[in-house]
Amino acid sequence: MRDAFHDDLDAVRETLVEMSGLVGHAMERATTALLTADLKIAEEVISDDSKIDALHHDLDNRILGIMARQQPVAGDLRILVTSIRMSADLERMGDLADHIAKVARMRYPSTAVPPELILTIQEMGSVVKLIIAKTSSVIQSQDITVALQLEKDDDEMDRLHRKLFITLLDDSWSHGIETAIDMTLIGRYYERCADHAVSVARRVYFLVTGEYASDQA
Amino acid sequence: MRDAFHDDLDAVRETLVEMSGLVGHAMERATTALLTADLKIAEEVISDDSKIDALHHDLDNRILGIMARQQPVAGDLRILVTSIRMSADLERMGDLADHIAKVARMRYPSTAVPPELILTIQEMGSVVKLIIAKTSSVIQSQDITVALQLEKDDDEMDRLHRKLFITLLDDSWSHGIETAIDMTLIGRYYERCADHAVSVARRVYFLVTGEYASDQA
Repeated sequence: MRDAFHDDLDAVRETLVEMSGLVGHAMERATTALLTADLKIAEEVISDDSKIDALHHDLDNRILGIMARQQPVAGDLRILVTSIRMSADLERMGDLADHIAKVARMRYPSTAVPPELILTIQEMGSVVKLIIAKTSSVIQSQDITVALQLEKDDDEMDRLHRKLFITLLDDSWSHGIETAIDMTLIGRYYERCADHAVSVARRVYFLVTGEYASDQA
Repeated sequence: MRDAFHDDLDAVRETLVEMSGLVGHAMERATTALLTADLKIAEEVISDDSKIDALHHDLDNRILGIMARQQPVAGDLRILVTSIRMSADLERMGDLADHIAKVARMRYPSTAVPPELILTIQEMGSVVKLIIAKTSSVIQSQDITVALQLEKDDDEMDRLHRKLFITLLDDSWSHGIETAIDMTLIGRYYERCADHAVSVARRVYFLVTGEYASDQA
């Protein structure tokens, strides 16, 4: 039979899954806004970020309440503390989607991304979307096999990030410094978002196995 | 009379002060390495980052131990959870010092910073040093007046960050795309480091007053 405490833990997990869903949706729309110079979608991503912030805030308070009420020890305490950290990662990922949308908005009605980088940004968008979807499923299922796969997906993000710099540094680059700055920051936002998602998956790995996934600081 | 629990809390606070000292020292040396193309100092900053990571890791485990043993509620629980968050901020600030040192190392024996940005980077280094020192004193003293001052220091960092972009975008910029990319990332590392320091000070403000400082998400 389930007790109230385990219902509380399930509800925490559900909120983390919900947050990851919102973050994935935000990143997907931020990529669309960026590639299609869609001001309306950019504004939506920016204003929806407060929903993710509010969920983060509420979840933190809820977890503190559970800790105070239930006085968990050992594994249960670790789950709650780790959930606070996952919530912080997800909140930050929402900020990074917001940052990408803000670049789209700043350059509107122009497109921030020059033609030779459209494919790279599309791929970064696809990879981060995949990583966030897998992270969400890892939070839900606690499937550590998927958690480990994320390291490979993150290698792909790193490869795309390097490819972006190669394009910026090519002699044929004709879009000037401003666009290079935009693309440098955007590349960093995608890469950091993927890092945070991988960090969430590693935290699940740690909860399930009691060991750190390789590469974990 | 002090009990064991309050000794534990004091020890947590001391570790946070120690971490902030190491982070301040790391950022100061990273700035020196960057401005003087000093490979030895850059390497030291990079290798010393593992000390900050280890303190972060140990502190987290210690806090979990205190929670499990002492079963704190209300304010004491909040102090411990907030300390976990401050430790994460400080660890990240160490990473950002490491990133700056890595740019210095990558460009050695050249200097990563072109002449017209030396003053801006010096000022960013001074401001971040001041912000970290104040954050450290806020953790130690719990003086919320200083915590609030940090918002103004952070405005100064934002001003320098904008100044950096103005220099990069000026028609007279003659250092090409690669240096512009370096400086874009370095500017972001300083700005993020200051943000995390301000976030730590806001967390202290919250612990002392029970309210969020303005601007707190």
